[in-house]
Amino acid sequence: MRVYNFSPGPATLPVEVLEQAAKEMVEYKDCGMSVMEMSHRSKMYEEIHEEAEILLKELMEIPSNYKVLFLQGGASQQFAMIPMNLYKNGKADYVLTGEWANKACKEAAKILKTTVIATSEDKNFSYIPDIKEFSPDADYIHITTNNTICGTRFLKIPDTGNIPLVADMSSGILSEVFDVSKFGLIYAGAQKNIGPAGLTIVIIREDLPENEYASKLPSIFQYKVHAKANSLFNTAPTYSIYMAKLCLEWLKNQGGVAGIQKVNEAKAKLMYDFLDNSPLFSGIADKKYRSLMNIPFTTGDDAKDKDFIKKAAEVGLVNLSGHRLVGGLRASIYNAMPMAGVEKLVNFMKDFETGEGQG
Amino acid sequence: MRVYNFSPGPATLPVEVLEQAAKEMVEYKDCGMSVMEMSHRSKMYEEIHEEAEILLKELMEIPSNYKVLFLQGGASQQFAMIPMNLYKNGKADYVLTGEWANKACKEAAKILKTTVIATSEDKNFSYIPDIKEFSPDADYIHITTNNTICGTRFLKIPDTGNIPLVADMSSGILSEVFDVSKFGLIYAGAQKNIGPAGLTIVIIREDLPENEYASKLPSIFQYKVHAKANSLFNTAPTYSIYMAKLCLEWLKNQGGVAGIQKVNEAKAKLMYDFLDNSPLFSGIADKKYRSLMNIPFTTGDDAKDKDFIKKAAEVGLVNLSGHRLVGGLRASIYNAMPMAGVEKLVNFMKDFETGEGQG
Repeated sequence: MRVYNFSPGPATLPVEVLEQAAKEMVEYKDCGMSVMEMSHRSKMYEEIHEEAEILLKELMEIPSNYKVLFLQGGASQQFAMIPMNLYKNGKADYVLTGEWANKACKEAAKILKTTVIATSEDKNFSYIPDIKEFSPDADYIHITTNNTICGTRFLKIPDTGNIPLVADMSSGILSEVFDVSKFGLIYAGAQKNIGPAGLTIVIIREDLPENEYASKLPSIFQYKVHAKANSLFNTAPTYSIYMAKLCLEWLKNQGGVAGIQKVNEAKAKLMYDFLDNSPLFSGIADKKYRSLMNIPFTTGDDAKDKDFIKKAAEVGLVNLSGHRLVGGLRASIYNAMPMAGVEKLVNFMKDFETGEGQG
Repeated sequence: MRVYNFSPGPATLPVEVLEQAAKEMVEYKDCGMSVMEMSHRSKMYEEIHEEAEILLKELMEIPSNYKVLFLQGGASQQFAMIPMNLYKNGKADYVLTGEWANKACKEAAKILKTTVIATSEDKNFSYIPDIKEFSPDADYIHITTNNTICGTRFLKIPDTGNIPLVADMSSGILSEVFDVSKFGLIYAGAQKNIGPAGLTIVIIREDLPENEYASKLPSIFQYKVHAKANSLFNTAPTYSIYMAKLCLEWLKNQGGVAGIQKVNEAKAKLMYDFLDNSPLFSGIADKKYRSLMNIPFTTGDDAKDKDFIKKAAEVGLVNLSGHRLVGGLRASIYNAMPMAGVEKLVNFMKDFETGEGQG
């Protein structure tokens, strides 16, 4: 029996997508082979590749002066590739809103001079800090739109004027409507809202990777090389791109990003309303900046949290432990988590609470 | 109906493996979820990850002072990561035996000083050149054990003494027995003999990545970081590793590498014997250095080659066109290509020849 999987990533996928993938595993349509066996230079694979790109462009309303890249290595590889490719003055501004923003900043500091222009580290990243000013000669300003570990998100995307805004959108991409034109570069590991691990999406304004520093890099690290080759410079992670295509089709059928955003808001509201009225459980992040995707919460008692995780797993509600940096509990409710999963979780929390009251 | 797929990579996979993957796609064992949905930090995924590593070590008899890394980015990313990680004197020797060796050398030249110590470019890479001497202060010597495009292979692995031998084994790994202890580093894209595209294997002697240059690289590019984290420094390409595990189990059931080598030799012999006696078709590579995996051949007539490709596809023998740098025809017959596929191809070639003779 399928469980409800609240993992922060790799995460739950739409069951309809998995069923279709299972059906097409041995033979894709009338091709006589699996997608996994297709040459990345074959017409049948290229169709899948193109469709995935077209769907992403359509769903995110990506302007025509942006390129979509299908890369590998996760967001972690982008932590390095971004400063390597956008290097001009050798300076970049970082906003620290969590562990992943921290890591992005530390890795960039191996390439260029980083300036932390805002941070919420003083309160264990439980809020989003205001950006008061940024360096006028920064090559870019980096933010993390949704923070998987501490469960916060930017409600308003900062206006950075002429300086390119770079966003790690790994855990927020496709969950709510973003105006792509506000960003110079968006990147995301696929394993939360796009598809399986092993695929990384980069959306880049096409003028950005044109600089001298980047052109001396090994080809595989140059955005320009991948852009020119439509992400087929070398063998792409073909099966992961096929799975992403299926997930994007599924998303389109849910009413696209605007449609899923409504569902995501309703799912998050159900959780947050319950947490705000619960005598036992409470949310951890600052209410003002709450994430739609990742909800850290706690009973305030470590042993009770552990008991909750164990009992929840017994009824098919799994991967509810909090990240070690925050502790407690966490429910990640990405696009593919149905409302029914959140309802079951909230009902179970109610029962657990009652049981505790009686105990 | 499944076809026989002679693609050079991504390539055919064992049908039993695809069938098992299809069966386990929606729910893996009693986990209630797909492998694709598992957290890379979960116990159930870690078991798969470990088993894949253990199987590879066992099948290749990898000595205990070597680390196996599951990385991303293909062999092309290794073209850069190798010089970045093995950099000591800033010099490396390259043996050019084909387009991929060429590319590896060109990318390395962006990092350190490369010396071409042998090349077969004079005869369009149709043979393996002798290595007469190498630079005594080279950080490593790079070879490509099997050449996918021109269909040659090293019959004897050169002895490089104290200088680490680095080998791109993408299209030869697991196809024949190699003595891993002769190499400092072996790398391979998975999409030929290991599993799906999007996974890259690196086997490295554990003393090698310990140097100053490497320790300043972004973490994601350091072998040492991946080795220390057992390839779970960041989110691994989990599903590709699961597929690799299934393929390695399959290989073990074929009698391991020694077992499949016999089958591969028989498959190649069938093809080469036919080519050597055919009035119409002939092999392209020098007989002495013929590959077991990739067999370029031709009728000598471009129009006839094209007609052959078309007619072969009609009977379910697909992806037989040669690489544009060599032209003609090519049959890639990796581990997962059954003898029945090669027999069908040879029989079809006989019929085509007869038809031509009558025509």
